[in-house]
Amino acid sequence: MIRGLTRAGLGQVGSDEAFIALAARYGFQAVDIDAGKLIAEKGAEGAASLLSANGMRIGSIGLPVQWRTTDDEFRKGLPALLAAAEGARQLGCTACCTYILPSTDEPAAPFMAAAIRRLRLCAQILGAYGIRLGLEFVGPHHLRTRWKHPYIWTMSDTLDLAAAIGEPNVGLLLDSYHWYTTELGVEDLHVLRADQIVHVHLNDAPDVPVSEALDNDRRITGEGVIDLAGFLKALRHIGYTGVVSQEVLTQQPPQEPAEELVQRTAAGYDRLFAEAGIEG
Amino acid sequence: MIRGLTRAGLGQVGSDEAFIALAARYGFQAVDIDAGKLIAEKGAEGAASLLSANGMRIGSIGLPVQWRTTDDEFRKGLPALLAAAEGARQLGCTACCTYILPSTDEPAAPFMAAAIRRLRLCAQILGAYGIRLGLEFVGPHHLRTRWKHPYIWTMSDTLDLAAAIGEPNVGLLLDSYHWYTTELGVEDLHVLRADQIVHVHLNDAPDVPVSEALDNDRRITGEGVIDLAGFLKALRHIGYTGVVSQEVLTQQPPQEPAEELVQRTAAGYDRLFAEAGIEG
Amino acid sequence: MIRGLTRAGLGQVGSDEAFIALAARYGFQAVDIDAGKLIAEKGAEGAASLLSANGMRIGSIGLPVQWRTTDDEFRKGLPALLAAAEGARQLGCTACCTYILPSTDEPAAPFMAAAIRRLRLCAQILGAYGIRLGLEFVGPHHLRTRWKHPYIWTMSDTLDLAAAIGEPNVGLLLDSYHWYTTELGVEDLHVLRADQIVHVHLNDAPDVPVSEALDNDRRITGEGVIDLAGFLKALRHIGYTGVVSQEVLTQQPPQEPAEELVQRTAAGYDRLFAEAGIEG
Amino acid sequence: MIRGLTRAGLGQVGSDEAFIALAARYGFQAVDIDAGKLIAEKGAEGAASLLSANGMRIGSIGLPVQWRTTDDEFRKGLPALLAAAEGARQLGCTACCTYILPSTDEPAAPFMAAAIRRLRLCAQILGAYGIRLGLEFVGPHHLRTRWKHPYIWTMSDTLDLAAAIGEPNVGLLLDSYHWYTTELGVEDLHVLRADQIVHVHLNDAPDVPVSEALDNDRRITGEGVIDLAGFLKALRHIGYTGVVSQEVLTQQPPQEPAEELVQRTAAGYDRLFAEAGIEG
Repeated sequence: MIRGLTRAGLGQVGSDEAFIALAARYGFQAVDIDAGKLIAEKGAEGAASLLSANGMRIGSIGLPVQWRTTDDEFRKGLPALLAAAEGARQLGCTACCTYILPSTDEPAAPFMAAAIRRLRLCAQILGAYGIRLGLEFVGPHHLRTRWKHPYIWTMSDTLDLAAAIGEPNVGLLLDSYHWYTTELGVEDLHVLRADQIVHVHLNDAPDVPVSEALDNDRRITGEGVIDLAGFLKALRHIGYTGVVSQEVLTQQPPQEPAEELVQRTAAGYDRLFAEAGIEG
Repeated sequence: MIRGLTRAGLGQVGSDEAFIALAARYGFQAVDIDAGKLIAEKGAEGAASLLSANGMRIGSIGLPVQWRTTDDEFRKGLPALLAAAEGARQLGCTACCTYILPSTDEPAAPFMAAAIRRLRLCAQILGAYGIRLGLEFVGPHHLRTRWKHPYIWTMSDTLDLAAAIGEPNVGLLLDSYHWYTTELGVEDLHVLRADQIVHVHLNDAPDVPVSEALDNDRRITGEGVIDLAGFLKALRHIGYTGVVSQEVLTQQPPQEPAEELVQRTAAGYDRLFAEAGIEG
Repeated sequence: MIRGLTRAGLGQVGSDEAFIALAARYGFQAVDIDAGKLIAEKGAEGAASLLSANGMRIGSIGLPVQWRTTDDEFRKGLPALLAAAEGARQLGCTACCTYILPSTDEPAAPFMAAAIRRLRLCAQILGAYGIRLGLEFVGPHHLRTRWKHPYIWTMSDTLDLAAAIGEPNVGLLLDSYHWYTTELGVEDLHVLRADQIVHVHLNDAPDVPVSEALDNDRRITGEGVIDLAGFLKALRHIGYTGVVSQEVLTQQPPQEPAEELVQRTAAGYDRLFAEAGIEG
Repeated sequence: MIRGLTRAGLGQVGSDEAFIALAARYGFQAVDIDAGKLIAEKGAEGAASLLSANGMRIGSIGLPVQWRTTDDEFRKGLPALLAAAEGARQLGCTACCTYILPSTDEPAAPFMAAAIRRLRLCAQILGAYGIRLGLEFVGPHHLRTRWKHPYIWTMSDTLDLAAAIGEPNVGLLLDSYHWYTTELGVEDLHVLRADQIVHVHLNDAPDVPVSEALDNDRRITGEGVIDLAGFLKALRHIGYTGVVSQEVLTQQPPQEPAEELVQRTAAGYDRLFAEAGIEG
């Protein structure tokens, strides 16, 4: 598996260039950043050189399309999707992810039909660039009633959404935080095939009852209560060899220096990868 | 347009053969019956001869698959779907319809994903037989809260469901009763293209407030309060030339002889077709 | 049916604005021009006003994507496709067309797989803008051996290509010149449904054996040997009510003034529409 | 990886029950047999028990549909496809395979369109049963001109066919004999993802120039000239963990007793698995 970082929860990591250098310094091999923006700043060759000089790849880009509101808003985002996909392709990134909120103010059934229709087009476009679409289910209990109608939040329903989309390049963004807050176990990962997973987030949770774990109160990987070694071992068991990126959403920006936070993250990854028997 | 009958609300019309003869006697040109069953009884040639001797066609067959419950139940129905599709194809019938209930005991969003996935396969199979799939939205207000969660009941949401299914051969079964109970007008039909309509039901409603019109308290075509001439005129305006079949759901079987009921229906069709300026 | 013009074979018709005015002056109701370019010049409102002031619509835009060569070239065209689709949508145009050459230097089978894959994405994108994709089969015999391998040129194979693409918004661009050079008759049109036709070209052929009719040696509508009245009558019979646009490909630019050519075209349309019993 | 056998080239292996016992005796873990037939003979429970008692699974079933001729023939096979898929599902088999001949008497381009349309429906139906469709490219040079028109025979074109089908559950049946006769190397396997492979055939070739290797003149695994250790090592490298089944097509039935042939096959597998560093 490939150790990855997002900027979330790491404070002031600076420019993409600085972030990449910092990640590399602590043994990370992937960052989740905006491929198109990096190319806009450095040119396609410059961006590729920067990544390769640091032994770095881009783990995943975000889906730059508003698929949750109107067809007009959705169409407005399509040019950005093409640009993002082309940028990712040029830098060898093959994952693009979006999250599914567990409740919605829209009537749930028509919203699901619209979501499937729109995400299918996103997947089809991404497919032309050799990129897969990862759907992230979101587990924290408080979000299930945050908006008017329940939507979906289980891994199983998210796989069914992927099946309803029906394209070859759609799978899961599997986040350990949502695995934990939807109260799944190691055995629930064992039934997955590795190719159903497009991307992985590796996060930890505070020591509170699982039903009270807030989406934006996460802990640095290895500093919380989630059985992350078990999580990683299960991923290894099913043959997943892709990126696992930390994404520590917090209510307040962290006060510690970014370098310290990255160092603590690296220490967590070291220990957990060792416990899970993962090389690299 | 082609005048059609279902058995609903016509009492004891007898065997398919008797029903076809009765329909023909009163100028109807289509019946909605089970094509496979007719072939099972008469053979493919016999069934075709019976229809052509009576100047009759089959308007639509029903979708013989349980797509509303489990994947197991769904799969169990697929052999019957193949048989029904083959039967319809042999008799020149190109429509197969199912209805969408406006509420559900299933969680609405996952149920929509499963429905789209299953109905897509039905459409794909039907497509191999040259048959289209018509989705009927169901308007009566009492059914919107009959089960736990609201689902979909508007024409617009049903067209969006068809778009989410994403197959070339999916459209509407447009029933005047549901057009009326969802409080649509003539102008809402004008925005349709004729090819979005797979099949039409022509029914009338009792003189009660629209919100109190029950799904199974319909009136014979032309004997109620729906502006059916306006409905037909709008269909003519957009170029619809297919079958319009009566389907009078009632709480109790009618007491009158079938022949009298068919005669009254024919009278209703005569008057309405004339008012709408439809030949034939 | 709606009378349309392309610029082909009309000589110097000038700017889009001049072309639209000229077309309107002779009773045409549609022009096939680049919607995005018109909006770039006039703004969306200005373009819409110009069209409506002239009682004009855009019949079809061209597909601005290279789907016949490499995936790289194909991807490069996608931003232009989004822009063209958005332009068409803003001006109410719902057709986008491309042609299929009857032979190819590519190995035929893999080229067909690539074509289906790429045209499907085009259709999917166009569908998000409410636009249909019309596939034009190309009949002239000399083109069937112009490149190394035979590809497809019959209406039937083109419908099968549309079916293999499998999207709801794909159909034919039916050109009378290709109908003639593939030696189809009126009865071959009778088996079409109107909704299988996205757009129509109305052109005439010189008085040479059909196997010698060159693709770029067409005649002004009504001045050649094709049974265009029969063609239009058949379209009317199946309920086609869309645009029929002239596209007179010629080896040399015509010498006559554009106004004279448009006038002759209008005379041809007048006579043929009358013969075919088409109003408007 | 899982050691598998087909009946091909093993002579008189007898009933499925005898074949399963023989395969088990020599350490094989999978057989490619007709799941539906086994269930018809033993019942679903009996078939499952027979397999589990022998530590055996079904590697792949064959696609029981004629997709290479007419739509009529194709439709006739669909009930058998449902039955085969249901049988495979009940016995936990998730692969169904078909082969693509490298030349055809049909015009190549329309045949490709029809093939894509028909195989898509097969894939969609199989998907409802949790089964993947494997497409086998066929390499021997003599077959490329055996019928009138060249079709496809490269791995790359077959992957593109899978992409044109566009369903999530379509991939390759990768046969070492076709890998060899299309002159691919280990590096061509390294660019595959494991999930693009639905099933693997492991066969050997006689010591003749590669262009003269006949499709039905194969050798028992390990007794020929193909670098099968390299082939297996490459599959291991990309993470393939599925079944590798021998399928020794020969011009004449072998004269040796089946047990001897299975024993020699097992010896070949033992040596090659060891050389490739594969456990099990």
